Amino acid sequence: MKQKLRTMRHTAEHVLTQAMLSLYPGLKMAMGPATDEGFYFDFDYSKKISEEDFSKIEAKMQKIIDEDLPLKKEVLSVEKARKLFKGNEYKQKWLDEIDEKGEKASLYHTGNEFTDLCAGPHIASTGKIGAFKLLSIAGAYWRGDEKNKMLTRIYGTAFPTQKELRVHLARLEKAKKRDHRKLGKELDLFCFSELVGSGLPLYTPKGTTIIEELQKHIEFVCRNYGFGKVMTPHLAKLKLFELSGHVQKFNEEIFRVSSLRNHEFALKPVQCPHQTQIYASRPRSYRDLPIRYMESERQYRAEKSGEVGGLNRVYAITVEDGHSFCRVDQVKDEVKGMVNIIKDFYTALGLWGNHWVSLSVRDYNHPEKYIGEPKDWDKCEEMLKEVSDEMKLDAKTCEGEAALYGPKLDFMFKDALGNEIQIPTVQVDFATPKRFDLTYTNKSGKKVSPVMVHRAVLGSYERLLALLIEHFAGAFPVWLSPIQVKVLPVTDKNSKYANQVTRQLSNKNIRVELDDRNETLQAKIRDAQLQKIPYMLIIGGKEENAKKVAVRLRTEKNLGQMSLGKFIERIGRKIDNKSLDL
Amino acid sequence: MKQKLRTMRHTAEHVLTQAMLSLYPGLKMAMGPATDEGFYFDFDYSKKISEEDFSKIEAKMQKIIDEDLPLKKEVLSVEKARKLFKGNEYKQKWLDEIDEKGEKASLYHTGNEFTDLCAGPHIASTGKIGAFKLLSIAGAYWRGDEKNKMLTRIYGTAFPTQKELRVHLARLEKAKKRDHRKLGKELDLFCFSELVGSGLPLYTPKGTTIIEELQKHIEFVCRNYGFGKVMTPHLAKLKLFELSGHVQKFNEEIFRVSSLRNHEFALKPVQCPHQTQIYASRPRSYRDLPIRYMESERQYRAEKSGEVGGLNRVYAITVEDGHSFCRVDQVKDEVKGMVNIIKDFYTALGLWGNHWVSLSVRDYNHPEKYIGEPKDWDKCEEMLKEVSDEMKLDAKTCEGEAALYGPKLDFMFKDALGNEIQIPTVQVDFATPKRFDLTYTNKSGKKVSPVMVHRAVLGSYERLLALLIEHFAGAFPVWLSPIQVKVLPVTDKNSKYANQVTRQLSNKNIRVELDDRNETLQAKIRDAQLQKIPYMLIIGGKEENAKKVAVRLRTEKNLGQMSLGKFIERIGRKIDNKSLDL
Repeated sequence: MKQKLRTMRHTAEHVLTQAMLSLYPGLKMAMGPATDEGFYFDFDYSKKISEEDFSKIEAKMQKIIDEDLPLKKEVLSVEKARKLFKGNEYKQKWLDEIDEKGEKASLYHTGNEFTDLCAGPHIASTGKIGAFKLLSIAGAYWRGDEKNKMLTRIYGTAFPTQKELRVHLARLEKAKKRDHRKLGKELDLFCFSELVGSGLPLYTPKGTTIIEELQKHIEFVCRNYGFGKVMTPHLAKLKLFELSGHVQKFNEEIFRVSSLRNHEFALKPVQCPHQTQIYASRPRSYRDLPIRYMESERQYRAEKSGEVGGLNRVYAITVEDGHSFCRVDQVKDEVKGMVNIIKDFYTALGLWGNHWVSLSVRDYNHPEKYIGEPKDWDKCEEMLKEVSDEMKLDAKTCEGEAALYGPKLDFMFKDALGNEIQIPTVQVDFATPKRFDLTYTNKSGKKVSPVMVHRAVLGSYERLLALLIEHFAGAFPVWLSPIQVKVLPVTDKNSKYANQVTRQLSNKNIRVELDDRNETLQAKIRDAQLQKIPYMLIIGGKEENAKKVAVRLRTEKNLGQMSLGKFIERIGRKIDNKSLDL
Repeated sequence: MKQKLRTMRHTAEHVLTQAMLSLYPGLKMAMGPATDEGFYFDFDYSKKISEEDFSKIEAKMQKIIDEDLPLKKEVLSVEKARKLFKGNEYKQKWLDEIDEKGEKASLYHTGNEFTDLCAGPHIASTGKIGAFKLLSIAGAYWRGDEKNKMLTRIYGTAFPTQKELRVHLARLEKAKKRDHRKLGKELDLFCFSELVGSGLPLYTPKGTTIIEELQKHIEFVCRNYGFGKVMTPHLAKLKLFELSGHVQKFNEEIFRVSSLRNHEFALKPVQCPHQTQIYASRPRSYRDLPIRYMESERQYRAEKSGEVGGLNRVYAITVEDGHSFCRVDQVKDEVKGMVNIIKDFYTALGLWGNHWVSLSVRDYNHPEKYIGEPKDWDKCEEMLKEVSDEMKLDAKTCEGEAALYGPKLDFMFKDALGNEIQIPTVQVDFATPKRFDLTYTNKSGKKVSPVMVHRAVLGSYERLLALLIEHFAGAFPVWLSPIQVKVLPVTDKNSKYANQVTRQLSNKNIRVELDDRNETLQAKIRDAQLQKIPYMLIIGGKEENAKKVAVRLRTEKNLGQMSLGKFIERIGRKIDNKSLDL
């Protein structure tokens, strides 16, 4: 189903390209794929095209669809294809790559009017495209590299029916209002600096508060399951990541570090290798296991410079990572503990329940692809199944989805917008301890390898923060709110009492701010509302005389007057329970 | 006085060199300075020299001293000096440098028997050297660079009298037992890995606990003074540090970051420039000030590879740094708040009181050396004086000790070994806000520069941890102890009750471990004592029957039986008060 939709969207992209070429002579097409959400098309053109031109382009596209032109594939030698795309340096570069691989060029013709270099597949004819819409226009670097030329990109989408398209557009509209980049700025949670560079977010005190609350929460949960926090540096010799296998696999994404004094290091792209070195720092016995480490640290990946943006694609990723080094007979209990951590953590965010679990096992037809002993694999896959049964996870077995080094459990959640998010995972790993020569002395006095169980719970703070901003539309539960209470004196006369109230709340470690500006109450309420502050305490003459506070929620609900003690008791309970309502 | 001692030690080093040359023909002298603690001498020799040879060398040195040879200076052309040191590539390299600077070579002759290339000064004759002693021998890279040849280094020291030397040697003996590298390993606080690299400490769960307690404490104190925590990445464009002036001053110490994808960044050597960018992320008004940021983050400096070691000289430095952006009329209150933070923090470590304060002001004869308006300097120096008076700091005015960008207050403490440590500082800075074009809108609607007040409280966690390990000889106050309580069941029969006790303590967030090994009570006590665990709860039949615990301190004092509730009350009070005694 999904594949069918992609194919149709890919054809819609060809129709867009064809329409553009006929409307804008001299425009050079560069590339354009289908995506999970629609399609886009990159081109190089000397004049400015804007969203105001969309209706004209859409009309032209509709015309091509109405003509119901057939799509036909043709395979040509690279040499012949080169002639066809003469003068288009982008297509020539694609052809260079095809040539290097010793392959032939695959073309798709739309009727007799348009031809593009394309591997396909496509639907039979343009008339089979259902409902489509152009969405936005933006700059995009050729090949995602900041150092290349900036092209223009048009985003669009297509669905089988108008109804489906309308539902999607409504969802996009909702998502736009919740966009974490927009809300992050409005709520002053993080910023970027031209001098620091994109892909390198700086967190303000408010954003840092949310990250710290998440961190306190995950670390509290993990401590209960025996994890000890460690701290490792961001640098290491490149050799560490050669041994772990990361250089071989992700060489382009590893930042190199050097100095005028001839130092040579790499920035860590993952946390695991450093943690193995703490395990390796002293001899271990079977009685010492399991040994569990956790860490919340920045790691760095050299993403393509043209592709970084917002918090979802950054160079600096703050990852909460944890590992258990254990014996094979302990794997099951370790996995259970980790699943419980995931459950505890996501329950507090209100996401547990709206999820499904994948038990990702080997591709049994290709045992040669995997590292480790088949009998260990059998045992661990069996254990994961038992965990799923005993903990009623109802995990779906997904063959071929295991990691190279071991089977795993993956957790898929849905956010408020219905997006599927895969963050938490528990992975059994036989390979890494062997690569790093980790050992423990077993009961018979022999040195043997431990098993390493990886667990990610919240993944990266950057992506989780983006997700939570969008999920809650900035209206965080009170335990996560950077400012939990705003005290609003009605007039100057109430300032002193309002000050007292503020101080008393602050002494109880409640994050409180006083709005003593010379503004109307209405203006103060509006501003607090815009900042999505959960509780507003309104303090006028009546309240002051009664030594009470009037409590208003950001939902616009009024709880009426109550004593400060009673309010503190209420908010304290909501914070401690990590309650989702106010 | 200090300078006189250094001069005498420098001469002692020449005597050592002379003695070595006469005892070991073919030995090549490389270099040797006086230090705060004594002197050392680096040389290149084909055979092994060990501490067993010290008595022979010391005897030879004593002979040279007894001969009371005069030291005489001579200035020669580089060309002539080259002939004198023919065959010694190290001296030739020194001469290259002197030549490049267009200077002449300064030599010192000891009698007619020995000549070294040396800028001096020296004492009049060898007979004026008081008591001396050779201390140790170690490898040392030429010029401190791992890529250069490994030389041999002999450390020694000298004092005016035998008595002073004896006191110093006793102190060294004490310090050796407390060496943070030795205790760090024994107490399992941190480790290094060959694969990660030296200068890059990895903190175990125990070491991380201490760092986190320090961090919680400093952040708690600072929050009370209005600091908001921020989080900034370790990377930035090099331009950020060109603007701040760090590239111009510390170019060699700045790590460069690159990738196969052509990224170019630098690792931050300090925190300030990043924090300015959060300030700069939105418009600020005079009503918003002061804005205070704090951060505990790793920064990276490319120290010479041959010089890193232990926690005192590392590439990865975790710095607790904070800044206030304020108006000139707010500087005084800001400085006062920061001094209070320093007082609060060091009082909890038992170091406040044993300190003195420097009010570091301009060199009034050279106003051209400083950045900023003289009238702002006058105002701020005056303010710092007022702060010193009003807070009874009794600060000593030290002319010429100000930073280039503003005056400051420096705090000097003494640790348990009598070492002077300068960590905390409060610095007024007029320059940085201007370099980064930071502004706020003042009452008249004009954009003007804020003042930036820097404050360091604990400095780097690495150096503070090293200092505290040595200060407390690993016996940390209970609030800092990685394990606060060890529960010791006398026999297997008491295991169940011991387990209950452990769980109850853990539920109260006390860091507790149960020693249920099959060992004698004596052995368990010895191990807990070696780990310097503050409290041991001994649980035998008597205690179990009485539902009590027998409390033993690591000081070997027994508090006798008490109920668990009473013990929890006691330890809770000691933790909350950050008490130094148990």
